[in-house]
Amino acid sequence: TEIALAPKEASFDRLKLEDLLKRRFFYDQSFAIYGGVTGLYDFGPMGCALKANMLHQWRKHFILEEGMLEVDCTSLTPEPVLKASGHVDRFADWMVKDTKNGECFRADHLIKNSIEKLLNEKKTSAAVRNDCEDVLARLEGFDDKDMHEVITRFNFKSPITGNDLTEPIAFNLMFPTQIGPTGDFKAFLRPETAQGIFVNFKRLLEFNQGKLPFAAAQIGLGFRNEISPRQGLIRVREFTMCEIEHFVDPDDKSCAKFADIADQKLVLFSACNQLDGAAAREVAIGEAVAKKTVANETLGYYMARCHQFLIKVGVDPRRLRFRQHLSNEMAHYAQDCWDAEILTSYGWIECVGNADRACYDLQQHFKATNVKLVAEKKLPQPVDVDIVEAQPNMALLGKSYKKDSRRIQAALQQLSSEDVTALEAELLSAKLYKLNVGPESFDLTPDHVKIKKYQKKVHVQELTPSVIEPSYGIGRIMYAVLEHSYRQRETEDQRIFLAIKPLVAPIKCSILPISANDTLVPVMEAIKKELALHELSYKVDDSSGSIGRRYARTDEIGIPFGITVDFDSLKTSPFTVTVRHAETMTQIRLDVPEVGRLVADLCAGRLQWSDAQAKFPAFESKSE
Amino acid sequence: TEIALAPKEASFDRLKLEDLLKRRFFYDQSFAIYGGVTGLYDFGPMGCALKANMLHQWRKHFILEEGMLEVDCTSLTPEPVLKASGHVDRFADWMVKDTKNGECFRADHLIKNSIEKLLNEKKTSAAVRNDCEDVLARLEGFDDKDMHEVITRFNFKSPITGNDLTEPIAFNLMFPTQIGPTGDFKAFLRPETAQGIFVNFKRLLEFNQGKLPFAAAQIGLGFRNEISPRQGLIRVREFTMCEIEHFVDPDDKSCAKFADIADQKLVLFSACNQLDGAAAREVAIGEAVAKKTVANETLGYYMARCHQFLIKVGVDPRRLRFRQHLSNEMAHYAQDCWDAEILTSYGWIECVGNADRACYDLQQHFKATNVKLVAEKKLPQPVDVDIVEAQPNMALLGKSYKKDSRRIQAALQQLSSEDVTALEAELLSAKLYKLNVGPESFDLTPDHVKIKKYQKKVHVQELTPSVIEPSYGIGRIMYAVLEHSYRQRETEDQRIFLAIKPLVAPIKCSILPISANDTLVPVMEAIKKELALHELSYKVDDSSGSIGRRYARTDEIGIPFGITVDFDSLKTSPFTVTVRHAETMTQIRLDVPEVGRLVADLCAGRLQWSDAQAKFPAFESKSE
Repeated sequence: TEIALAPKEASFDRLKLEDLLKRRFFYDQSFAIYGGVTGLYDFGPMGCALKANMLHQWRKHFILEEGMLEVDCTSLTPEPVLKASGHVDRFADWMVKDTKNGECFRADHLIKNSIEKLLNEKKTSAAVRNDCEDVLARLEGFDDKDMHEVITRFNFKSPITGNDLTEPIAFNLMFPTQIGPTGDFKAFLRPETAQGIFVNFKRLLEFNQGKLPFAAAQIGLGFRNEISPRQGLIRVREFTMCEIEHFVDPDDKSCAKFADIADQKLVLFSACNQLDGAAAREVAIGEAVAKKTVANETLGYYMARCHQFLIKVGVDPRRLRFRQHLSNEMAHYAQDCWDAEILTSYGWIECVGNADRACYDLQQHFKATNVKLVAEKKLPQPVDVDIVEAQPNMALLGKSYKKDSRRIQAALQQLSSEDVTALEAELLSAKLYKLNVGPESFDLTPDHVKIKKYQKKVHVQELTPSVIEPSYGIGRIMYAVLEHSYRQRETEDQRIFLAIKPLVAPIKCSILPISANDTLVPVMEAIKKELALHELSYKVDDSSGSIGRRYARTDEIGIPFGITVDFDSLKTSPFTVTVRHAETMTQIRLDVPEVGRLVADLCAGRLQWSDAQAKFPAFESKSE
Repeated sequence: TEIALAPKEASFDRLKLEDLLKRRFFYDQSFAIYGGVTGLYDFGPMGCALKANMLHQWRKHFILEEGMLEVDCTSLTPEPVLKASGHVDRFADWMVKDTKNGECFRADHLIKNSIEKLLNEKKTSAAVRNDCEDVLARLEGFDDKDMHEVITRFNFKSPITGNDLTEPIAFNLMFPTQIGPTGDFKAFLRPETAQGIFVNFKRLLEFNQGKLPFAAAQIGLGFRNEISPRQGLIRVREFTMCEIEHFVDPDDKSCAKFADIADQKLVLFSACNQLDGAAAREVAIGEAVAKKTVANETLGYYMARCHQFLIKVGVDPRRLRFRQHLSNEMAHYAQDCWDAEILTSYGWIECVGNADRACYDLQQHFKATNVKLVAEKKLPQPVDVDIVEAQPNMALLGKSYKKDSRRIQAALQQLSSEDVTALEAELLSAKLYKLNVGPESFDLTPDHVKIKKYQKKVHVQELTPSVIEPSYGIGRIMYAVLEHSYRQRETEDQRIFLAIKPLVAPIKCSILPISANDTLVPVMEAIKKELALHELSYKVDDSSGSIGRRYARTDEIGIPFGITVDFDSLKTSPFTVTVRHAETMTQIRLDVPEVGRLVADLCAGRLQWSDAQAKFPAFESKSE
């Protein structure tokens, strides 16, 4: 199926693309004059503008169109927050070290590369080949013991030195630091922006006047201390992500706008398909939700919107699929997860995660802080509920525990009915109950608390919202878009260029005078004014190169439209110019006062180039 | 002078403003449910939108209008880069510790607060008062010994416990971390974005086709591990900054666009004025540069543009001044520096630095990397220059130093004429020269190198550009703007509201139906469509509160325009609505199809409210 999906443009040469991106400063390795740092990249003017345009579209497509609440939280995150979220204990990769020089390798990458090397060797026997294929298929689910077994069995060594390797060691991927001067306030750089939203849940719910569902979004940096990153923008240590946390009633994950996208077709690679060795299938998202392939409407809605966004910014739809996580890939609390994967020269790359994380995160932060992170749902009709409460004897409590008594009182009030029933049983049998208040524990005797039971009419129900989390890696999407924009001319010189979508192109048009003659200046000025009026970015290339060479230079950096000023421009009032469509190299001729609106419409996608060709006369250039 | 400048609106209550900003979630302390972290703030939907709008204006005002090259570099920065820039050795504050509990205080802040407390005490004698005033005046230039002397002489103690304090200790303000798994690659979070631009200088110069002057700009995070931050958004540990590095010929710092702004008047508080105890003066920037009060045209140009930007986003011009650094405040290499200071309830706050840093930064990175960071200037006519070169005997060098010989060759080629002359003298006298190559040193004998002297016709001159650096702290500017937007109604209820400039207001208009009656829905929909057409953000408040209460609620968050739908709206075709100007509470009535353009023009500053009042009939509301 991958071959079937692979497009015509596949005459792709990664080295040529990388050379172009570096030479024209889309991005390049950070601190290169200091020898560079792997996994860190700086964006130059072209990359910066492309990224800014993609983020602008993301904000429009999600935050504005869906009315999300945007937040902007800090990268610095105290340890207890990431302890609660599970990152301190579990956000790690297995690494193996060269036993002699200490060089580190990510264990799964080392196994994958070593296996692939084996498979490429002619002398490898059929039996070993089968074994290799089997390891590759199961590698995603391997733990440290599995990996150690494989490394030992195949006798894998360091690919650099040939030295022996250690057993896999867990390496936490968060960058550690400390806040403040004492050195004892441990913190990390956030590995994702999501936790910033969760810890602000109460404020956001209040901002939304207490109503569910609602979504919050954040655009910001994430940091991951990758063990040995080697795949350009695909695996980096500092990156921009866009995350949405959509809070929803766990008993009703329907979506009001689902009908709008129900007919939209997505290529789904379900867990079943993967386990059966079947291919990905194109399915309408409405059908996928109806058949429970995708867990619920809200998740399905975000997958469809994700598909729309990726296509809009220039991902080739034939190289896009949604792959469901297998049960062993997913966290125990997750209900369902579909990665948007994009096919690049590095293979299928996870660029967006769409996960139903249930109520795990809010509950974890509640457990860590004792601050209730819940919403209220109005019941269809009031119900009588049995209340069990532990009422403190404040006088006695004060006597026993002095200033701690207030905190004990608060902790008692926050106990669930089950907790109070357990406390009652314990006090009855053991005459003693150990109450945990934060890290401390206090002994309570039957005299300290009275158990009160009664019925109450209740109009609302408290619930911990479920969270649907779409999480976008902007650098990866950007790299995929650049690969998918790569084109080679079928002309003799076979020169390459970038067909970046006008919507996100770093520069919307070039202005090219056919000659350096001063008489053309008034036309140039008229065009600049016209473009500024429509807020269109442009690049003037009035260098002495031939017009063909200048077209090539602007095509190379993905400028979609070229405005050429020639001596005919002066002959009419208003002036006329030609507009050239870089991708097809075709040109039309029109009046300067029409140029701004035309290019703006083309960039916004309100018009296609064929529409422009229908509207304005063609112009034949002799120079290409 | 400060009193003379203080505006009428000074009925300012910081507690009320802070309450509003917290309640309506402009921003609030990060990780509050975990007890909070001082110096870290999260922006909610209102703060996020305000910040995004301010950054958008900054990008337009500087990057687009001035054609700057934007870059986006990493926060993670290897130690050698910050060693070269001087931050590892010198980016520190002096702190004193409580000798008993170890609590840390920034020494200068402790002295300032203790002195101010003394001055507030009635019993303090005239002599001590004089002494106090003298310390305050000189505090900015104090080193550790000076501060220790003051603390000892006045017998200052910890303001919390009254315990003794240690001598001042230097505390480096950068957050340390490590890159990669080995733990031996030390790095810091960048304390400013500037270094990312300097290390990319070669690529940027190339992008600009080798031509000077040009400016690069970066919008991004900076991190400073403040000792004990306590002033809200004024002093934070993680913040957004916008920095420009303008590279210019050190012998010609004139500015092509200077004439555009030469007549612009700025309030300048020169070093002379400060030393003389004179007041700040309003001066045309052209005059200030002509009289050498401001060092050069380029610096003056950026100061004028800075003034324009700050006013544009809502800084009160009466509370803005440019204060020149005293010589003891400036780094030894800096030529001149003017801080844009804004008067807030915390006093005059430095919000923008405008510095001429000469060629220090590029030279430092050259020294550390041996990579030339220079531009070429075409000479008016070719000149003959004496060349002195150290030519290596590669055969002998290879024999002596094997694989190092290439690096030695490269190092020899990079020696300046002066270095070669020194080398020649040394070889002649001592028969030995120690050549430094990075951290290593190699012994060269007269056999290893031959000194070659000749004349060469030279058409270009190499130069290390000077750097003019405007550096904007966006959080501080935003806080100042919020303070300056604070207003109190002169009505009975004296309610407060924010008169944020429409250009940067988080939400541009509110839509308020006078009643929940369904018949008004078509008007509401027509308005929403009209606003979407002009890309104007809005907030619908259809809650049941009285219209007056709803106006108050939208005024409070700085929504500049309110669109009210009443039953008269339906009586005409097209529908009509009223538009209310929050600041003056006056209203006009107009057709719905005119609303979008009017509000867009008002927000962009193309129209003032008085223009709108002249154009459309007034509407008298009975509800306020």
